[in-house]
Amino acid sequence: MKNVLIVGIGTGNPEHMTVQAINALNAANTLFIPTKGEAKAQLAGIRRDIVSRYVTRPDSRVVEFAIPVRQTADRSYHQSVDQWHAAIATAYERLLLEELGEGQTGAFLVWGDPMLYDSTIRIIERVRALETVAFDYSVIPGITSIQALAASHRIPLNLVGKPVEITTGRRLSESFPQRSETVVVMLDGEQAFMRIEDPDARIYWGAYLGTEQEIVISGRLAEVKEDILASRAEARARHGWIMDIYLLQKGADFEE
Amino acid sequence: MKNVLIVGIGTGNPEHMTVQAINALNAANTLFIPTKGEAKAQLAGIRRDIVSRYVTRPDSRVVEFAIPVRQTADRSYHQSVDQWHAAIATAYERLLLEELGEGQTGAFLVWGDPMLYDSTIRIIERVRALETVAFDYSVIPGITSIQALAASHRIPLNLVGKPVEITTGRRLSESFPQRSETVVVMLDGEQAFMRIEDPDARIYWGAYLGTEQEIVISGRLAEVKEDILASRAEARARHGWIMDIYLLQKGADFEE
Ligand SMILES: C[S@@+](CC[C@H](N)C(=O)[O-])C[C@H]1O[C@@H](n2cnc3c(N)ncnc32)[C@H](O)[C@@H]1O
Ligand SMILES: C[S@@+](CC[C@H](N)C(=O)[O-])C[C@H]1O[C@@H](n2cnc3c(N)ncnc32)[C@H](O)[C@@H]1O
Repeated sequence: MKNVLIVGIGTGNPEHMTVQAINALNAANTLFIPTKGEAKAQLAGIRRDIVSRYVTRPDSRVVEFAIPVRQTADRSYHQSVDQWHAAIATAYERLLLEELGEGQTGAFLVWGDPMLYDSTIRIIERVRALETVAFDYSVIPGITSIQALAASHRIPLNLVGKPVEITTGRRLSESFPQRSETVVVMLDGEQAFMRIEDPDARIYWGAYLGTEQEIVISGRLAEVKEDILASRAEARARHGWIMDIYLLQKGADFEE
Repeated sequence: MKNVLIVGIGTGNPEHMTVQAINALNAANTLFIPTKGEAKAQLAGIRRDIVSRYVTRPDSRVVEFAIPVRQTADRSYHQSVDQWHAAIATAYERLLLEELGEGQTGAFLVWGDPMLYDSTIRIIERVRALETVAFDYSVIPGITSIQALAASHRIPLNLVGKPVEITTGRRLSESFPQRSETVVVMLDGEQAFMRIEDPDARIYWGAYLGTEQEIVISGRLAEVKEDILASRAEARARHGWIMDIYLLQKGADFEE
Protein backbone atom coordinates (compact mmCIF):
# COMPACT_ATOMS: atom_id res chain seq x y z
CA MET A 1 0.00 0.00 0.00
CA LYS A 2 1.00 3.56 -0.68
CA ASN A 3 -0.23 6.47 1.40
CA VAL A 4 -1.49 9.85 0.18
CA LEU A 5 -1.94 12.97 2.30
CA ILE A 6 -4.07 15.82 0.96
CA VAL A 7 -2.72 18.75 2.92
CA GLY A 8 -4.34 22.18 3.23
CA ILE A 9 -1.62 24.83 3.36
CA GLY A 10 -3.61 28.05 3.81
CA THR A 11 -4.02 30.78 1.20
CA GLY A 12 -0.86 32.83 1.21
CA ASN A 13 0.35 33.38 4.76
CA PRO A 14 2.89 30.62 5.54
CA GLU A 15 2.08 31.12 9.26
CA HIS A 16 -1.41 29.77 8.59
CA MET A 17 0.14 26.29 8.34
CA THR A 18 -1.10 24.03 11.14
CA VAL A 19 1.09 21.76 13.23
CA GLN A 20 -0.76 18.80 11.70
CA ALA A 21 0.03 20.03 8.17
CA ILE A 22 3.70 20.55 9.05
CA ASN A 23 3.87 17.03 10.48
CA ALA A 24 2.16 15.68 7.37
CA LEU A 25 4.71 17.30 5.06
CA ASN A 26 7.46 15.78 7.16
CA ALA A 27 5.81 12.35 7.04
CA ALA A 28 5.94 12.37 3.23
CA ASN A 29 8.71 10.87 1.10
CA THR A 30 7.48 12.92 -1.85
CA LEU A 31 5.81 16.32 -2.00
CA PHE A 32 3.65 17.02 -5.03
CA ILE A 33 3.43 20.68 -6.03
CA PRO A 34 1.16 21.81 -8.87
CA THR A 35 2.43 24.46 -11.24
CA LYS A 36 -0.49 26.28 -12.83
CA GLY A 37 1.19 28.27 -15.56
CA GLU A 38 2.92 31.65 -15.61
CA ALA A 39 0.25 33.81 -14.00
CA LYS A 40 0.18 31.69 -10.90
CA ALA A 41 3.92 31.24 -10.55
CA GLN A 42 3.66 33.22 -7.33
CA LEU A 43 1.37 30.57 -5.87
CA ALA A 44 3.88 27.83 -6.67
CA GLY A 45 6.47 30.11 -5.06
CA ILE A 46 4.45 30.27 -1.83
CA ARG A 47 4.18 26.48 -1.83
CA ARG A 48 7.95 26.20 -2.28
CA ASP A 49 8.54 28.67 0.57
CA ILE A 50 6.35 26.54 2.82
CA VAL A 51 8.40 23.47 1.96
CA SER A 52 11.71 25.17 2.61
CA ARG A 53 10.45 26.72 5.83
CA TYR A 54 8.80 23.70 7.43
CA VAL A 55 10.16 20.51 5.90
CA THR A 56 13.08 19.39 8.05
CA ARG A 57 13.32 15.80 6.88
CA PRO A 58 16.42 15.66 4.69
CA ASP A 59 15.42 12.83 2.35
CA SER A 60 12.14 14.19 1.00
CA ARG A 61 11.75 14.93 -2.69
CA VAL A 62 9.69 17.62 -4.36
CA VAL A 63 7.95 16.67 -7.60
CA GLU A 64 6.40 19.52 -9.53
CA PHE A 65 3.72 18.64 -12.03
CA ALA A 66 1.71 20.63 -14.55
CA ILE A 67 -2.06 20.57 -14.13
CA PRO A 68 -3.73 19.88 -17.50
CA VAL A 69 -5.55 22.88 -18.96
CA ARG A 70 -9.36 22.77 -18.99
CA GLN A 71 -10.84 22.50 -22.50
CA THR A 72 -14.01 24.48 -23.02
CA ALA A 73 -14.69 24.38 -26.79
CA ASP A 74 -17.79 22.50 -27.98
CA ARG A 75 -18.93 21.21 -24.60
CA SER A 76 -21.06 22.20 -21.60
CA TYR A 77 -19.53 23.59 -18.41
CA HIS A 78 -20.13 20.32 -16.66
CA GLN A 79 -18.65 18.18 -19.44
CA SER A 80 -15.70 20.50 -19.48
CA VAL A 81 -15.06 20.11 -15.73
CA ASP A 82 -15.70 16.37 -15.80
CA GLN A 83 -13.21 15.79 -18.64
CA TRP A 84 -10.70 18.09 -16.94
CA HIS A 85 -10.96 16.07 -13.70
CA ALA A 86 -10.46 12.87 -15.69
CA ALA A 87 -7.29 14.32 -17.24
CA ILE A 88 -5.96 15.39 -13.82
CA ALA A 89 -6.79 11.93 -12.44
CA THR A 90 -4.59 10.41 -15.17
CA ALA A 91 -1.77 12.76 -14.19
CA TYR A 92 -2.17 11.85 -10.49
CA GLU A 93 -2.27 8.14 -11.31
CA ARG A 94 1.06 8.48 -13.08
CA LEU A 95 2.56 10.37 -10.11
CA LEU A 96 1.45 7.68 -7.67
CA LEU A 97 2.70 4.87 -9.94
CA GLU A 98 6.02 6.42 -10.92
CA GLU A 99 7.02 8.74 -8.10
CA LEU A 100 5.99 6.72 -5.00
CA GLY A 101 7.56 3.41 -3.99
CA GLU A 102 5.63 0.66 -2.20
CA GLY A 103 4.92 1.65 1.42
CA GLN A 104 5.83 5.28 0.72
CA THR A 105 3.85 8.42 1.50
CA GLY A 106 3.16 11.30 -0.89
CA ALA A 107 1.63 14.65 0.03
CA PHE A 108 -0.37 16.94 -2.23
CA LEU A 109 -0.10 20.59 -1.15
CA VAL A 110 -3.55 22.13 -1.57
CA TRP A 111 -4.30 25.86 -1.50
CA GLY A 112 -6.48 26.76 1.51
CA ASP A 113 -8.57 23.82 2.70
CA PRO A 114 -9.13 20.81 0.40
CA MET A 115 -12.87 20.85 1.26
CA LEU A 116 -13.57 24.27 -0.27
CA TYR A 117 -13.93 24.71 -4.06
CA ASP A 118 -11.07 22.33 -4.66
CA SER A 119 -11.19 19.03 -6.48
CA THR A 120 -8.19 17.17 -5.11
CA ILE A 121 -10.37 14.88 -2.95
CA ARG A 122 -12.67 14.09 -5.89
CA ILE A 123 -9.75 13.41 -8.17
CA ILE A 124 -8.01 11.14 -5.67
CA GLU A 125 -11.30 9.20 -5.40
CA ARG A 126 -11.28 8.91 -9.22
CA VAL A 127 -7.76 7.51 -9.14
CA ARG A 128 -8.83 4.96 -6.52
CA ALA A 129 -11.71 3.91 -8.75
CA LEU A 130 -9.24 3.16 -11.58
CA GLU A 131 -7.82 0.36 -9.37
CA THR A 132 -4.42 0.59 -11.02
CA VAL A 133 -2.56 1.65 -7.88
CA ALA A 134 -3.41 0.62 -4.29
CA PHE A 135 -3.31 3.43 -1.77
CA ASP A 136 -5.06 4.88 1.26
CA TYR A 137 -5.41 8.60 1.91
CA SER A 138 -6.26 11.18 4.52
CA VAL A 139 -7.20 14.86 4.46
CA ILE A 140 -5.60 17.59 6.58
CA PRO A 141 -7.56 20.86 6.86
CA GLY A 142 -6.04 24.26 6.18
CA ILE A 143 -7.05 27.86 6.81
CA THR A 144 -9.35 28.98 3.95
CA SER A 145 -9.50 32.31 2.16
CA ILE A 146 -12.85 32.91 3.93
CA GLN A 147 -11.05 32.83 7.26
CA ALA A 148 -8.22 35.03 6.01
CA LEU A 149 -10.86 37.54 4.82
CA ALA A 150 -12.75 37.60 8.13
CA ALA A 151 -9.55 37.85 10.20
CA SER A 152 -8.17 40.75 8.14
CA HIS A 153 -11.46 42.65 8.43
CA ARG A 154 -11.89 41.52 12.06
CA ILE A 155 -15.49 40.51 11.40
CA PRO A 156 -17.73 37.61 12.36
CA LEU A 157 -18.97 35.78 9.27
CA ASN A 158 -22.54 35.39 10.54
CA LEU A 159 -24.99 37.78 12.14
CA VAL A 160 -26.05 36.48 15.58
CA GLY A 161 -27.74 33.09 15.14
CA LYS A 162 -28.20 33.61 11.38
CA PRO A 163 -27.12 31.60 8.31
CA VAL A 164 -24.32 32.26 5.84
CA GLU A 165 -24.16 31.17 2.21
CA ILE A 166 -20.95 30.48 0.34
CA THR A 167 -21.23 30.75 -3.43
CA THR A 168 -19.46 31.65 -6.67
CA GLY A 169 -19.56 34.85 -8.74
CA ARG A 170 -21.40 32.91 -11.42
CA ARG A 171 -24.26 32.12 -9.02
CA LEU A 172 -24.37 35.28 -6.90
CA SER A 173 -27.46 36.68 -8.62
CA GLU A 174 -29.47 33.65 -7.41
CA SER A 175 -28.67 34.31 -3.81
CA PHE A 176 -28.06 37.88 -2.59
CA PRO A 177 -30.06 39.67 -1.31
CA GLN A 178 -33.24 37.67 -1.94
CA ARG A 179 -32.18 34.21 -0.67
CA SER A 180 -29.43 35.06 1.82
CA GLU A 181 -28.59 38.09 3.95
CA THR A 182 -24.95 37.06 4.28
CA VAL A 183 -23.03 35.64 1.32
CA VAL A 184 -19.37 34.85 0.77
CA VAL A 185 -18.44 35.04 -2.90
CA MET A 186 -15.47 33.15 -4.30
CA LEU A 187 -14.26 32.39 -7.81
CA ASP A 188 -15.70 35.63 -9.17
CA GLY A 189 -14.20 36.40 -12.57
CA GLU A 190 -16.99 38.81 -13.50
CA GLN A 191 -17.18 41.19 -10.48
CA ALA A 192 -20.75 40.11 -9.86
CA PHE A 193 -20.99 42.55 -6.92
CA MET A 194 -21.22 45.41 -9.45
CA ARG A 195 -24.72 44.20 -10.40
CA ILE A 196 -26.10 44.22 -6.82
CA GLU A 197 -28.26 47.31 -6.29
CA ASP A 198 -29.42 46.81 -2.70
CA PRO A 199 -28.96 50.12 -0.82
CA ASP A 200 -28.43 48.31 2.51
CA ALA A 201 -25.70 45.98 1.29
CA ARG A 202 -22.26 46.18 2.90
CA ILE A 203 -19.16 44.56 1.36
CA TYR A 204 -15.94 43.27 2.89
CA TRP A 205 -13.53 42.60 0.03
CA GLY A 206 -10.00 41.20 0.05
CA ALA A 207 -7.40 40.26 -2.56
CA TYR A 208 -4.07 38.40 -2.23
CA LEU A 209 -5.04 37.73 1.40
CA GLY A 210 -2.22 36.64 3.63
CA THR A 211 0.46 37.73 1.15
CA GLU A 212 2.52 40.92 1.07
CA GLN A 213 0.23 42.23 -1.68
CA GLU A 214 -2.90 41.95 0.49
CA ILE A 215 -5.55 44.62 -0.18
CA VAL A 216 -8.78 44.98 1.81
CA ILE A 217 -11.66 47.39 1.27
CA SER A 218 -14.98 47.54 3.12
CA GLY A 219 -18.01 49.78 3.39
CA ARG A 220 -21.47 50.31 1.95
CA LEU A 221 -21.50 48.52 -1.39
CA ALA A 222 -22.97 51.53 -3.21
CA GLU A 223 -20.19 53.75 -1.88
CA VAL A 224 -17.16 51.51 -2.38
CA LYS A 225 -17.96 49.31 -5.38
CA GLU A 226 -16.27 51.59 -7.92
CA ASP A 227 -13.24 51.85 -5.68
CA ILE A 228 -13.01 48.05 -5.44
CA LEU A 229 -13.40 47.70 -9.20
CA ALA A 230 -10.60 50.19 -9.83
CA SER A 231 -8.23 48.77 -7.17
CA ARG A 232 -8.86 45.28 -8.49
CA ALA A 233 -8.13 46.23 -12.09
CA GLU A 234 -5.01 48.15 -11.14
CA ALA A 235 -3.62 45.35 -8.93
CA ARG A 236 -4.44 42.72 -11.50
CA ALA A 237 -2.63 44.62 -14.23
CA ARG A 238 0.39 45.19 -11.99
CA HIS A 239 0.75 41.57 -10.75
CA GLY A 240 -0.56 39.78 -13.83
CA TRP A 241 -3.06 37.77 -11.75
CA ILE A 242 -5.50 38.22 -8.87
CA MET A 243 -7.37 36.12 -6.32
CA ASP A 244 -10.14 37.90 -4.50
CA ILE A 245 -13.06 37.06 -2.26
CA TYR A 246 -15.76 39.07 -0.52
CA LEU A 247 -18.58 38.99 1.98
CA LEU A 248 -21.87 40.74 1.20
CA GLN A 249 -24.20 41.41 4.09
CA LYS A 250 -27.38 43.22 4.91
CA GLY A 251 -29.48 43.22 8.06
CA ALA A 252 -28.15 43.35 11.59
CA ASP A 253 -27.52 41.32 14.72
CA PHE A 254 -30.42 41.04 17.11
CA GLU A 255 -33.31 41.23 14.67
CA GLU A 256 -35.63 38.43 13.57
CA MET B 1 -2.22 51.26 24.61
CA LYS B 2 -2.87 47.63 25.42
CA ASN B 3 -3.07 44.96 22.79
CA VAL B 4 -5.61 42.15 22.46
CA LEU B 5 -5.28 39.04 20.30
CA ILE B 6 -8.38 36.98 19.54
CA VAL B 7 -6.86 33.61 18.74
CA GLY B 8 -8.64 30.68 17.07
CA ILE B 9 -7.33 27.43 18.56
CA GLY B 10 -9.22 24.79 16.56
CA THR B 11 -11.96 22.54 17.88
CA GLY B 12 -10.32 19.77 19.82
CA ASN B 13 -7.21 18.57 17.99
CA PRO B 14 -4.23 20.50 19.42
CA GLU B 15 -2.39 19.85 16.13
CA HIS B 16 -4.89 22.10 14.37
CA MET B 17 -3.11 25.07 15.97
CA THR B 18 -1.49 27.26 13.32
CA VAL B 19 2.02 28.69 13.52
CA GLN B 20 0.44 32.17 13.68
CA ALA B 21 -1.72 31.15 16.67
CA ILE B 22 1.28 29.62 18.46
CA ASN B 23 3.26 32.82 17.90
CA ALA B 24 0.31 34.88 19.13
CA LEU B 25 0.09 32.91 22.38
CA ASN B 26 3.80 33.47 22.87
CA ALA B 27 3.45 37.19 22.19
CA ALA B 28 0.95 37.53 25.06
CA ASN B 29 1.76 38.49 28.63
CA THR B 30 -1.60 37.13 29.73
CA LEU B 31 -3.71 34.30 28.35
CA PHE B 32 -7.44 34.50 29.02
CA ILE B 33 -9.20 31.14 29.21
CA PRO B 34 -12.97 30.92 29.64
CA THR B 35 -14.39 28.26 31.93
CA LYS B 36 -17.92 27.45 30.88
CA GLY B 37 -19.18 25.35 33.81
CA GLU B 38 -18.85 21.67 34.67
CA ALA B 39 -20.14 20.11 31.45
CA LYS B 40 -17.53 21.87 29.39
CA ALA B 41 -14.63 21.30 31.77
CA GLN B 42 -13.11 19.14 29.04
CA LEU B 43 -12.99 22.11 26.68
CA ALA B 44 -11.13 24.20 29.26
CA GLY B 45 -8.84 21.16 29.63
CA ILE B 46 -8.07 21.20 25.90
CA ARG B 47 -7.29 24.93 26.10
CA ARG B 48 -4.92 24.27 29.03
CA ASP B 49 -3.23 21.45 27.09
CA ILE B 50 -2.67 23.83 24.19
CA VAL B 51 -1.06 26.36 26.50
CA SER B 52 1.23 23.81 28.14
CA ARG B 53 2.15 22.30 24.77
CA TYR B 54 2.88 25.46 22.79
CA VAL B 55 3.60 28.35 25.14
CA THR B 56 7.34 28.45 25.68
CA ARG B 57 7.64 31.98 27.05
CA PRO B 58 8.35 31.55 30.78
CA ASP B 59 6.74 34.76 32.07
CA SER B 60 3.22 34.42 30.69
CA ARG B 61 0.26 34.19 33.04
CA VAL B 62 -2.97 32.29 32.57
CA VAL B 63 -6.13 34.00 33.83
CA GLU B 64 -9.23 31.84 33.88
CA PHE B 65 -12.56 33.62 33.98
CA ALA B 66 -16.17 32.47 34.24
CA ILE B 67 -18.45 33.44 31.36
CA PRO B 68 -21.73 34.87 32.75
CA VAL B 69 -24.74 32.59 32.28
CA ARG B 70 -27.34 33.66 29.71
CA GLN B 71 -30.69 34.64 31.27
CA THR B 72 -33.72 33.59 29.25
CA ALA B 73 -36.73 34.23 31.52
CA ASP B 74 -39.22 36.95 30.49
CA ARG B 75 -37.36 38.15 27.39
CA SER B 76 -37.03 37.42 23.67
CA TYR B 77 -34.15 35.37 22.26
CA HIS B 78 -32.52 38.50 20.93
CA GLN B 79 -32.87 40.46 24.18
CA SER B 80 -31.47 37.48 25.97
CA VAL B 81 -28.38 37.32 23.73
CA ASP B 82 -27.92 41.10 23.74
CA GLN B 83 -27.98 41.30 27.55
CA TRP B 84 -25.70 38.30 27.78
CA HIS B 85 -23.16 39.97 25.48
CA ALA B 86 -23.36 43.14 27.59
CA ALA B 87 -22.59 41.08 30.71
CA ILE B 88 -19.64 39.38 29.02
CA ALA B 89 -18.37 42.77 27.82
CA THR B 90 -18.33 43.96 31.44
CA ALA B 91 -16.32 40.87 32.41
CA TYR B 92 -13.85 41.49 29.55
CA GLU B 93 -13.54 45.16 30.43
CA ARG B 94 -12.53 44.17 33.96
CA LEU B 95 -9.96 41.68 32.64
CA LEU B 96 -8.38 44.29 30.38
CA LEU B 97 -8.35 46.91 33.16
CA GLU B 98 -7.11 44.69 35.96
CA GLU B 99 -5.10 41.91 34.37
CA LEU B 100 -3.20 43.79 31.63
CA GLY B 101 -0.59 46.46 32.31
CA GLU B 102 0.00 49.41 29.97
CA GLY B 103 1.73 48.26 26.77
CA GLN B 104 0.96 44.61 27.52
CA THR B 105 -0.68 42.02 25.28
CA GLY B 106 -3.51 39.69 26.26
CA ALA B 107 -4.78 36.76 24.21
CA PHE B 108 -8.28 35.28 24.27
CA LEU B 109 -8.29 31.61 23.29
CA VAL B 110 -11.35 31.03 21.09
CA TRP B 111 -12.76 27.63 20.15
CA GLY B 112 -12.43 26.99 16.39
CA ASP B 113 -12.32 30.24 14.42
CA PRO B 114 -13.50 33.52 15.99
CA MET B 115 -15.50 34.34 12.83
CA LEU B 116 -17.88 31.37 13.11
CA TYR B 117 -20.82 31.44 15.56
CA ASP B 118 -18.67 33.04 18.19
CA SER B 119 -19.13 36.45 19.77
CA THR B 120 -15.67 37.35 21.01
CA ILE B 121 -15.12 39.88 18.20
CA ARG B 122 -18.52 41.52 18.84
CA ILE B 123 -17.88 41.67 22.56
CA ILE B 124 -14.41 43.15 22.15
CA GLU B 125 -16.01 45.82 19.92
CA ARG B 126 -18.51 46.52 22.72
CA VAL B 127 -15.68 46.93 25.21
CA ARG B 128 -13.99 49.39 22.82
CA ALA B 129 -17.22 51.37 22.60
CA LEU B 130 -17.26 51.75 26.41
CA GLU B 131 -14.07 53.86 26.04
CA THR B 132 -12.90 52.93 29.52
CA VAL B 133 -9.75 51.12 28.40
CA ALA B 134 -7.64 51.96 25.34
CA PHE B 135 -6.57 48.97 23.28
CA ASP B 136 -6.08 47.71 19.77
CA TYR B 137 -6.83 44.16 18.68
CA SER B 138 -6.29 41.62 15.95
CA VAL B 139 -7.90 38.34 14.97
CA ILE B 140 -6.06 35.09 14.24
CA PRO B 141 -8.04 32.42 12.37
CA GLY B 142 -8.32 28.82 13.55
CA ILE B 143 -9.51 25.55 12.04
CA THR B 144 -13.32 25.35 12.43
CA SER B 145 -15.50 22.37 13.29
CA ILE B 146 -16.73 22.46 9.66
CA GLN B 147 -13.20 21.73 8.48
CA ALA B 148 -12.67 19.03 11.10
CA LEU B 149 -15.93 17.42 9.91
CA ALA B 150 -14.99 17.51 6.22
CA ALA B 151 -11.46 16.23 6.86
CA SER B 152 -12.63 13.30 8.99
CA HIS B 153 -15.18 12.27 6.35
CA ARG B 154 -12.71 13.09 3.53
CA ILE B 155 -15.39 15.06 1.66
CA PRO B 156 -15.54 18.32 -0.25
CA LEU B 157 -18.05 20.70 1.35
CA ASN B 158 -19.54 21.85 -1.96
CA LEU B 159 -20.73 20.02 -5.04
CA VAL B 160 -18.80 21.18 -8.15
CA GLY B 161 -19.40 24.93 -8.59
CA LYS B 162 -22.42 24.92 -6.23
CA PRO B 163 -23.24 26.91 -3.08
CA VAL B 164 -23.16 25.80 0.55
CA GLU B 165 -25.26 27.19 3.39
CA ILE B 166 -24.13 27.22 7.02
CA THR B 167 -26.96 27.40 9.54
CA THR B 168 -28.16 26.42 13.01
CA GLY B 169 -30.44 23.58 14.13
CA ARG B 170 -33.05 26.19 14.99
CA ARG B 171 -33.18 27.43 11.38
CA LEU B 172 -32.63 24.20 9.45
CA SER B 173 -36.28 23.81 8.47
CA GLU B 174 -36.06 27.11 6.53
CA SER B 175 -33.23 25.90 4.39
CA PHE B 176 -32.88 22.22 3.54
CA PRO B 177 -33.84 20.85 1.09
CA GLN B 178 -35.96 23.65 -0.41
CA ARG B 179 -33.49 26.58 -0.27
CA SER B 180 -30.12 24.81 -0.30
CA GLU B 181 -28.88 21.48 -1.59
CA THR B 182 -25.88 21.51 0.77
CA VAL B 183 -26.20 22.68 4.36
CA VAL B 184 -23.85 22.57 7.32
CA VAL B 185 -25.76 22.52 10.61
CA MET B 186 -24.18 23.74 13.84
CA LEU B 187 -25.55 24.52 17.31
CA ASP B 188 -28.27 21.90 16.97
CA GLY B 189 -29.76 21.14 20.38
CA GLU B 190 -32.90 19.63 18.90
CA GLN B 191 -31.61 17.08 16.35
CA ALA B 192 -33.35 18.94 13.59
CA PHE B 193 -32.13 16.36 11.03
CA MET B 194 -34.75 13.94 12.41
CA ARG B 195 -37.50 16.06 10.84
CA ILE B 196 -36.03 16.03 7.31
CA GLU B 197 -37.93 13.56 5.15
CA ASP B 198 -36.17 13.97 1.79
CA PRO B 199 -35.41 10.49 0.41
CA ASP B 200 -32.32 11.74 -1.46
CA ALA B 201 -30.67 13.43 1.52
CA ARG B 202 -27.27 12.20 2.67
CA ILE B 203 -25.79 13.13 6.04
CA TYR B 204 -22.19 13.39 7.26
CA TRP B 205 -22.30 13.71 11.05
CA GLY B 206 -19.51 14.16 13.60
CA ALA B 207 -19.25 14.68 17.35
CA TYR B 208 -16.27 15.60 19.56
CA LEU B 209 -14.31 16.10 16.33
CA GLY B 210 -10.57 16.21 16.76
CA THR B 211 -10.68 14.73 20.26
CA GLU B 212 -10.15 11.14 21.38
CA GLN B 213 -13.92 10.75 21.69
CA GLU B 214 -14.52 11.60 18.02
CA ILE B 215 -17.49 9.76 16.44
CA VAL B 216 -18.43 10.03 12.75
CA ILE B 217 -21.39 8.50 10.94
CA SER B 218 -22.46 9.00 7.33
CA GLY B 219 -24.95 7.60 4.85
CA ARG B 220 -28.43 8.12 3.46
CA LEU B 221 -30.25 10.19 6.06
CA ALA B 222 -33.27 7.87 6.09
CA GLU B 223 -31.03 4.88 6.76
CA VAL B 224 -28.71 6.32 9.42
CA LYS B 225 -30.73 8.95 11.29
CA GLU B 226 -31.88 6.57 14.05
CA ASP B 227 -28.34 5.32 14.46
CA ILE B 228 -27.04 8.90 14.84
CA LEU B 229 -29.78 9.71 17.34
CA ALA B 230 -28.91 6.68 19.46
CA SER B 231 -25.12 7.18 19.27
CA ARG B 232 -25.56 10.84 20.15
CA ALA B 233 -27.76 10.11 23.17
CA GLU B 234 -25.46 7.36 24.40
CA ALA B 235 -22.29 9.48 24.03
CA ARG B 236 -23.93 12.49 25.61
CA ALA B 237 -25.04 10.48 28.63
CA ARG B 238 -21.58 8.95 28.99
CA HIS B 239 -19.58 12.22 28.69
CA GLY B 240 -22.12 14.58 30.24
CA TRP B 241 -21.93 16.93 27.22
CA ILE B 242 -21.73 16.81 23.43
CA MET B 243 -20.74 19.03 20.53
CA ASP B 244 -21.86 17.84 17.13
CA ILE B 245 -22.13 19.15 13.59
CA TYR B 246 -23.31 17.73 10.29
CA LEU B 247 -23.54 18.27 6.57
CA LEU B 248 -26.78 17.50 4.72
CA GLN B 249 -26.58 17.15 0.97
CA LYS B 250 -28.68 16.13 -1.99
CA GLY B 251 -27.98 16.34 -5.69
CA ALA B 252 -24.69 15.50 -7.36
CA ASP B 253 -21.62 16.97 -8.99
CA PHE B 254 -21.91 17.74 -12.68
CA GLU B 255 -25.61 18.53 -12.90
CA GLU B 256 -27.24 21.92 -13.40
C1 LIG C 1 -10.40 27.29 -6.47
S1 LIG C 1 -10.87 28.25 -5.08
C2 LIG C 1 -9.90 27.52 -3.82
C3 LIG C 1 -10.29 27.94 -2.43
C4 LIG C 1 -9.36 27.39 -1.36
N1 LIG C 1 -9.44 25.91 -1.31
C5 LIG C 1 -9.67 27.96 0.02
O1 LIG C 1 -9.72 27.17 0.98
O2 LIG C 1 -9.80 29.16 0.14
C6 LIG C 1 -10.04 29.78 -5.44
C7 LIG C 1 -10.80 31.00 -4.90
O3 LIG C 1 -10.49 31.16 -3.52
C8 LIG C 1 -10.37 32.54 -3.21
N2 LIG C 1 -8.99 32.77 -2.72
C9 LIG C 1 -8.04 31.84 -2.53
N3 LIG C 1 -6.93 32.39 -2.02
C10 LIG C 1 -7.17 33.71 -1.87
C11 LIG C 1 -6.41 34.80 -1.37
N4 LIG C 1 -5.16 34.63 -0.91
N5 LIG C 1 -6.99 36.04 -1.37
C12 LIG C 1 -8.25 36.20 -1.82
N6 LIG C 1 -9.01 35.20 -2.29
C13 LIG C 1 -8.48 33.96 -2.31
C14 LIG C 1 -10.71 33.31 -4.46
O4 LIG C 1 -12.10 33.62 -4.42
C15 LIG C 1 -10.41 32.31 -5.54
O5 LIG C 1 -11.19 32.56 -6.70
C1 LIG D 1 -20.68 28.32 19.48
S1 LIG D 1 -20.32 27.39 18.05
C2 LIG D 1 -18.59 27.70 17.87
C3 LIG D 1 -18.03 27.25 16.56
C4 LIG D 1 -16.51 27.46 16.47
N1 LIG D 1 -16.15 28.87 16.51
C5 LIG D 1 -15.94 26.83 15.21
O1 LIG D 1 -15.12 27.51 14.55
O2 LIG D 1 -16.25 25.66 14.89
C6 LIG D 1 -20.38 25.73 18.71
C7 LIG D 1 -20.83 24.70 17.68
O3 LIG D 1 -19.73 24.31 16.88
C8 LIG D 1 -19.77 22.94 16.59
N2 LIG D 1 -18.56 22.31 17.15
C9 LIG D 1 -17.53 22.96 17.76
N3 LIG D 1 -16.57 22.09 18.10
C10 LIG D 1 -16.97 20.87 17.69
C11 LIG D 1 -16.38 19.58 17.73
N4 LIG D 1 -15.18 19.37 18.26
N5 LIG D 1 -17.08 18.54 17.19
C12 LIG D 1 -18.30 18.73 16.64
N6 LIG D 1 -18.90 19.93 16.57
C13 LIG D 1 -18.24 20.99 17.08
C14 LIG D 1 -21.07 22.40 17.18
O4 LIG D 1 -22.06 22.45 16.18
C15 LIG D 1 -21.34 23.39 18.28
O5 LIG D 1 -22.72 23.46 18.58
